[in-house]
Amino acid sequence: MNRTRSEHDLLGDRDIPANAYWGVHTLRAVENFPISGQTIGQVNDLIVALAAIKQAAAMANADLGLLAPARSRAIIAACEEIRAGKLHDQFIVDQIQGGAGTSTNMNANEVIANRALELLGHKKGDYRHLHPNEHVNLSQSTNDVYPTALRIAAWAGLHRLIAQMASLRSAFAEKAVEFSDVLKMGRTQLQEAVPMTLGQEFNAFAIMLGEDELRLAEAAQLIREINLGATAIGTGITAHPDYAERVRARLAEVTGIPVITAPDLVEATQDCGAFVQVSGVLKRVAVKLSKTCNDLRLLSSGPRAGFAEINLPAKQAGSSIMPGKVNPVIPEVVNQVAFEVIGNDITITMAAEAGQLQLNAFEPVIAYSLFRSVSHLIAACQTLEINCIRGITANRDRLRESVENSIGLVTALNPYIGYAAATEVALEAHRTGRGVYELVLEKGLMTQARLDRVLRPEELTRPQQMVS
Amino acid sequence: MNRTRSEHDLLGDRDIPANAYWGVHTLRAVENFPISGQTIGQVNDLIVALAAIKQAAAMANADLGLLAPARSRAIIAACEEIRAGKLHDQFIVDQIQGGAGTSTNMNANEVIANRALELLGHKKGDYRHLHPNEHVNLSQSTNDVYPTALRIAAWAGLHRLIAQMASLRSAFAEKAVEFSDVLKMGRTQLQEAVPMTLGQEFNAFAIMLGEDELRLAEAAQLIREINLGATAIGTGITAHPDYAERVRARLAEVTGIPVITAPDLVEATQDCGAFVQVSGVLKRVAVKLSKTCNDLRLLSSGPRAGFAEINLPAKQAGSSIMPGKVNPVIPEVVNQVAFEVIGNDITITMAAEAGQLQLNAFEPVIAYSLFRSVSHLIAACQTLEINCIRGITANRDRLRESVENSIGLVTALNPYIGYAAATEVALEAHRTGRGVYELVLEKGLMTQARLDRVLRPEELTRPQQMVS
Amino acid sequence: MNRTRSEHDLLGDRDIPANAYWGVHTLRAVENFPISGQTIGQVNDLIVALAAIKQAAAMANADLGLLAPARSRAIIAACEEIRAGKLHDQFIVDQIQGGAGTSTNMNANEVIANRALELLGHKKGDYRHLHPNEHVNLSQSTNDVYPTALRIAAWAGLHRLIAQMASLRSAFAEKAVEFSDVLKMGRTQLQEAVPMTLGQEFNAFAIMLGEDELRLAEAAQLIREINLGATAIGTGITAHPDYAERVRARLAEVTGIPVITAPDLVEATQDCGAFVQVSGVLKRVAVKLSKTCNDLRLLSSGPRAGFAEINLPAKQAGSSIMPGKVNPVIPEVVNQVAFEVIGNDITITMAAEAGQLQLNAFEPVIAYSLFRSVSHLIAACQTLEINCIRGITANRDRLRESVENSIGLVTALNPYIGYAAATEVALEAHRTGRGVYELVLEKGLMTQARLDRVLRPEELTRPQQMVS
Amino acid sequence: MNRTRSEHDLLGDRDIPANAYWGVHTLRAVENFPISGQTIGQVNDLIVALAAIKQAAAMANADLGLLAPARSRAIIAACEEIRAGKLHDQFIVDQIQGGAGTSTNMNANEVIANRALELLGHKKGDYRHLHPNEHVNLSQSTNDVYPTALRIAAWAGLHRLIAQMASLRSAFAEKAVEFSDVLKMGRTQLQEAVPMTLGQEFNAFAIMLGEDELRLAEAAQLIREINLGATAIGTGITAHPDYAERVRARLAEVTGIPVITAPDLVEATQDCGAFVQVSGVLKRVAVKLSKTCNDLRLLSSGPRAGFAEINLPAKQAGSSIMPGKVNPVIPEVVNQVAFEVIGNDITITMAAEAGQLQLNAFEPVIAYSLFRSVSHLIAACQTLEINCIRGITANRDRLRESVENSIGLVTALNPYIGYAAATEVALEAHRTGRGVYELVLEKGLMTQARLDRVLRPEELTRPQQMVS
Repeated sequence: MNRTRSEHDLLGDRDIPANAYWGVHTLRAVENFPISGQTIGQVNDLIVALAAIKQAAAMANADLGLLAPARSRAIIAACEEIRAGKLHDQFIVDQIQGGAGTSTNMNANEVIANRALELLGHKKGDYRHLHPNEHVNLSQSTNDVYPTALRIAAWAGLHRLIAQMASLRSAFAEKAVEFSDVLKMGRTQLQEAVPMTLGQEFNAFAIMLGEDELRLAEAAQLIREINLGATAIGTGITAHPDYAERVRARLAEVTGIPVITAPDLVEATQDCGAFVQVSGVLKRVAVKLSKTCNDLRLLSSGPRAGFAEINLPAKQAGSSIMPGKVNPVIPEVVNQVAFEVIGNDITITMAAEAGQLQLNAFEPVIAYSLFRSVSHLIAACQTLEINCIRGITANRDRLRESVENSIGLVTALNPYIGYAAATEVALEAHRTGRGVYELVLEKGLMTQARLDRVLRPEELTRPQQMVS
Repeated sequence: MNRTRSEHDLLGDRDIPANAYWGVHTLRAVENFPISGQTIGQVNDLIVALAAIKQAAAMANADLGLLAPARSRAIIAACEEIRAGKLHDQFIVDQIQGGAGTSTNMNANEVIANRALELLGHKKGDYRHLHPNEHVNLSQSTNDVYPTALRIAAWAGLHRLIAQMASLRSAFAEKAVEFSDVLKMGRTQLQEAVPMTLGQEFNAFAIMLGEDELRLAEAAQLIREINLGATAIGTGITAHPDYAERVRARLAEVTGIPVITAPDLVEATQDCGAFVQVSGVLKRVAVKLSKTCNDLRLLSSGPRAGFAEINLPAKQAGSSIMPGKVNPVIPEVVNQVAFEVIGNDITITMAAEAGQLQLNAFEPVIAYSLFRSVSHLIAACQTLEINCIRGITANRDRLRESVENSIGLVTALNPYIGYAAATEVALEAHRTGRGVYELVLEKGLMTQARLDRVLRPEELTRPQQMVS
Repeated sequence: MNRTRSEHDLLGDRDIPANAYWGVHTLRAVENFPISGQTIGQVNDLIVALAAIKQAAAMANADLGLLAPARSRAIIAACEEIRAGKLHDQFIVDQIQGGAGTSTNMNANEVIANRALELLGHKKGDYRHLHPNEHVNLSQSTNDVYPTALRIAAWAGLHRLIAQMASLRSAFAEKAVEFSDVLKMGRTQLQEAVPMTLGQEFNAFAIMLGEDELRLAEAAQLIREINLGATAIGTGITAHPDYAERVRARLAEVTGIPVITAPDLVEATQDCGAFVQVSGVLKRVAVKLSKTCNDLRLLSSGPRAGFAEINLPAKQAGSSIMPGKVNPVIPEVVNQVAFEVIGNDITITMAAEAGQLQLNAFEPVIAYSLFRSVSHLIAACQTLEINCIRGITANRDRLRESVENSIGLVTALNPYIGYAAATEVALEAHRTGRGVYELVLEKGLMTQARLDRVLRPEELTRPQQMVS
Repeated sequence: MNRTRSEHDLLGDRDIPANAYWGVHTLRAVENFPISGQTIGQVNDLIVALAAIKQAAAMANADLGLLAPARSRAIIAACEEIRAGKLHDQFIVDQIQGGAGTSTNMNANEVIANRALELLGHKKGDYRHLHPNEHVNLSQSTNDVYPTALRIAAWAGLHRLIAQMASLRSAFAEKAVEFSDVLKMGRTQLQEAVPMTLGQEFNAFAIMLGEDELRLAEAAQLIREINLGATAIGTGITAHPDYAERVRARLAEVTGIPVITAPDLVEATQDCGAFVQVSGVLKRVAVKLSKTCNDLRLLSSGPRAGFAEINLPAKQAGSSIMPGKVNPVIPEVVNQVAFEVIGNDITITMAAEAGQLQLNAFEPVIAYSLFRSVSHLIAACQTLEINCIRGITANRDRLRESVENSIGLVTALNPYIGYAAATEVALEAHRTGRGVYELVLEKGLMTQARLDRVLRPEELTRPQQMVS
């Protein structure tokens, strides 16, 4: 019994395990790139996207009479199996690879060809009947298939991220309503400033997320622009003049994504601008998530000698040595994902900058970095929402007292007693530990009635007309 | 004769040069922040923006009856002088400063107050008549004035950059037309791939710029959102309820910029997202400019043993030791600006991430970095256009020969002889140094007539139907 | 039959699979941090390091009479199994985790405790006999165990990397010898400059690697400084005064690494400087490897219209559409690893900067990034050596011709004819396409005999005295 | 009267202002690189270093009989003037420039030549008597002069930085002594952990600085390695065989710096590794300074509702609207410098990576970034020391109370009551707001006498043996 089959490429012959759907090109890549141990098969979105493109190409080629119907049907059937989750374990090339994605494309071509051969009743490797390059890859080049696959995959990931951010936003917004009557001191530069509500503070977190969702949605619009039909360098060599539009329409049909064809395929084939843009916006999301988590850790610092304004839900014992210690472990993990996303952005930036002439050979590390940024951000937002935000409570008494004791109240008196006099009151309060309220009255700077009206809580947290 | 005047702040009294328009707050800042030696007065856009805001605030305060007409008129007159270019040397605070921009705002308040005092017939420093905080800064806080000033200044710079990029783009586009009939080998991964025209190559440079112009214009839309009326932390404490809209309208009138007020001022006061977004897009511009300049340096490598496809205009002797050497000095300086912009983006990212609670105290270094990115990119695009792109010539003979000698031509034969046979031809051409054309004929793979038709230059650089 | 056991922590009771060696603390962490899907168990160096530390601690505690001999022996035995490669699948916490490494430490404490319980004849989970915190973690805190484990693991990885770099260096050095007589034109700014040998060029690659090996070895010296004995924050609370030195000696004995105890444990417990330093040096390695690979891709550009000075061994078909195309896939994958390492350095930098007060809570993402940088660099150097450098050949004829045709030869004549006259010769050569040699003779600037002596190849590639 | 003189280069003739010491090469550069507006003349260290190198070269050339004594003396005299601070305004080339530093080198050659001509009694521009290239630049190339100048300049800056850091360190160390008896709660993850002294906390800041001083000193050792004698690409073409050693010795003599010649000049000429290393260490310094300033801002947060453990000296009014507000403006400016240095490191990294073949053309932006990092760090350390650290005071009462009220004290009881019982005490203390001390006694877990001995302050902040 023969446990292997022989395959041939421009370097010679190699034995391939008989039951493998991948072939000689995949084998070379596995040998050449033993880098991260993480295979492309682990990136579900990417494999599904590759299969969708190959299916759309087979349809378009059949539409144009370039591919025999039987072959087209077999390719389509193989692709639909892969899109349904099968054969992902046959995609064994390392995510970090040389060759500008050719190995990923050839891995797909080989797996699809061999599965299609089986469906046609042939043996795996019997490429006379259906060839990875000549049929599965017909009218295509790695240079249009691979970036298109990254874009289809990124579209899917980005929209899952946007949805998860919206869910996190709603958690913040609900807390904003819950805390809408909790007065506290706002802070600038870590020093108490003027009063606000804890609801206003949480509402700002929600709004920040909402803005980032919009920015991500804008960036996703750029990512749906594809270059199928470009073939090798964008000139469309070997492609039928009607192929680009046919395959675009078929891909939109297969994926449900409103893909559009780039206006200039030479430019589109070499340009990684959309990935840089998306990564830049992901970095922005990371910056704000990190800032939000920094604030949550600060506001919950304590338990007794810190800010201690809010309580994060306890999720695990905080220490192997300090009994009863509870730490802000969920915001901490989100911070770390944010740092990773910012680092990934530099990787993507350098890879994009290093592109030369008609192609960027470094898209694999762009993909590797981008997909991790997206999936880790999704996970981070989810654990933040479920394991942290929804369980936050406020230390209402402590917050109220901090406003009553605050020196910052004096700002509200600026329009009545002037900046210079207000400064004197503040300095005296600071020096003596006394309250602004009593000092203003003692000095006769305002009547008690007027002072009481100016300092009504509901007036302190929004613009106000002069109290007469 | 008195050469100084005395001013007072919460730390005590200080002597100020009698002829200085700045005052004690500015003096403290100069002493506290002797960092870069670069003053805010050197950033023309920023000083003009500050004066425009102070003018708009004086108008709005007068509109609302909060500021006496005489004071308002004097402040407005002082601001108009500054906007016309005067007194910029009075803005002496270091660009890199602590205090979240308070020193910049106070420098403006003091200069404007003292100039307005003069216009009212008073002596500088006689703040009883017109006070930096109580009148010039009325209804304002650093926390709304400073970020708004950065945005107004950034808007101006971004639009100058977009205009300069458009001019550079037209230079590339003109070269694309000039070189539209120059056939050459396109390259992927630095290896010859398939034919294209030099015009297509230069057109891609033009299109890349055009896309970046659109992205910058989008980012500029975010930057016009202001938070005037927020005062200290966004709650609007001490501000009249109608002030935010009045000052917005006045600022739009003064600057001609369609500014809008952020929907939530608490969020807007702490959020640096727009700066991160703009810097992210500037980084994208840098990535592509750098890639373009890498390509130009590569294509012009030589003079004899490199690619030598194009000639950049000689701009200076290239070497202090190698006679007659001419180097690609203009693309090189653009590369370096790109590296700086990418570094600045990290600075901005870290500063944005470090913001805490209701304010980001690190906006000064964001401004310092952002304004340099913008102004250096403008300068880089300008010298690239004028001193390089417009003078590029093509080595037409060498390019034509490279196509005729190329192995990559064989790709065009895929649809006729198949990938496997084509591979054999390519390997033999590589091994023997012979031409694809002769080998195909010698092997009888195609008739000469058909081969000639397939290889017509005008067919090689675009999609084509099968030649019968 | 009971398929689960119950465990208790400060949040309550949870069921644990009966056959699991991990316990409730690990379970909480798995639920809290479903981020990357990559477990700590996949980082062999880290698990081995943790086991070595726990073993050393058990020894030290026994030495000091703090731990009963039976318990100590059981813990030691469990640790030795783990160090031998067993039970790594029980380390299931995500590499990216909140809690400053507590979950990693507790995962180790639980697995070791349960394995030791088994060895003692007890059931898993029966912590009355041997407790994860009270016995396995005795005299320890996450805050000293975790950073020490990262350092021990990093030491191992760094030394494997140094060894692999030395091997790569020898490959370059052998090529330098092989090419020592191949004259070529050196280039500055991508323009031909003056002659050198290809051997000199390859020797520079070797020397660069050698310097980086030294820098890595220096950085490794910093990484062997540990803070065991610090317990929670460096004050050593709950630790015996002799423990720090005992455990250090025992750890050196167990691992064979010359670990030293940091001079100030409060500082050492909060400081991530050594990781920043190591990552900075890894970044330097990445920069130079990337530069080297850029050069290799450039020198091998072709096959006909590029530099085409050297040939990289063909490792796989370069294109799914272009027959016979061979690409520099190995240098390309190394470039991408370099970009990743540079991005990881930013992640590490931000995580280090974000540490607060007595601890850095973000060490897990430092570890995640650092270990990937190290392991990917090792893999990259290995494939570069084996699949690329050792198979490089030179195009000797082409190189010799390029020197003979070069204009840059004129530099050698500076001392004889002066910079100004040499510039005229160069310009005329450039304009006419003629050779420097003939022009100099034609103009009577030097005698042929003298010119021949000045231009002897062996004289052109090193300093030389004036030829008389 | 003739207000201009005419000069000639390979592009033709240009008029130069008659009184200018710079010449046509400088003029071309000024026209080509109008980027940052910051001239090399503003970098004092660089101009002094250039003059020292030119002086050493003139000496070495004279030593070897290559340069006439009169010319050598004139060049040396001109260089000494420049080193004394004269003529710096004649160095007008932009710091960000293409051409790999050639314009900087030629600016120096021209200024020195013209000043030397004057000293010899000739007119400026009369290069027949003394030529910028043939005499001032004799035996040199930009490619050895420029990197050497950067290294000499960096050496000077680094040592000023180290000295300033030592001064800052002493300020921290003095505070550590002052606060050595102030007990407080240490914190991990922003949550109270176990007791320590404020002195221990400040001592950690001092130690961190001390370590960074050592790392900088190590990096400086790399920076003193020079490549003079390399000429164009390291082969030493046109240089006398003894020149490299002569000029090294002369440069050491002139500068007092123990410069050494790189072992392989081809490698040294293309390698920017030392700059990457230095910048990496500067980044490490930035990371730790930023962390330290974050801590200072956190510990001084307040004035009433924050940590409020220490007071930073008030340095300026904190707000234009909030009277009496005092902010941590000095740490804030240091944070911002740190962010800039980290961004600069990315710029330097990218510029180093982009070097090609025998030279790195992007050293000017490396210099621009590195010199700013160094000088801004010096300024930041200085203002931090003088305007902040030396004036810090402690809120001793508040700190003592926080220890007495703390739950974290329970950690000290682990060895006596076990982790599980201690956890119960901590949870009850947290739930009820009661103290650990009373709860332990109430539950009869320890005798009062033993508890008192365990909790003696002097025992809590260091390792301790079990109390019997």
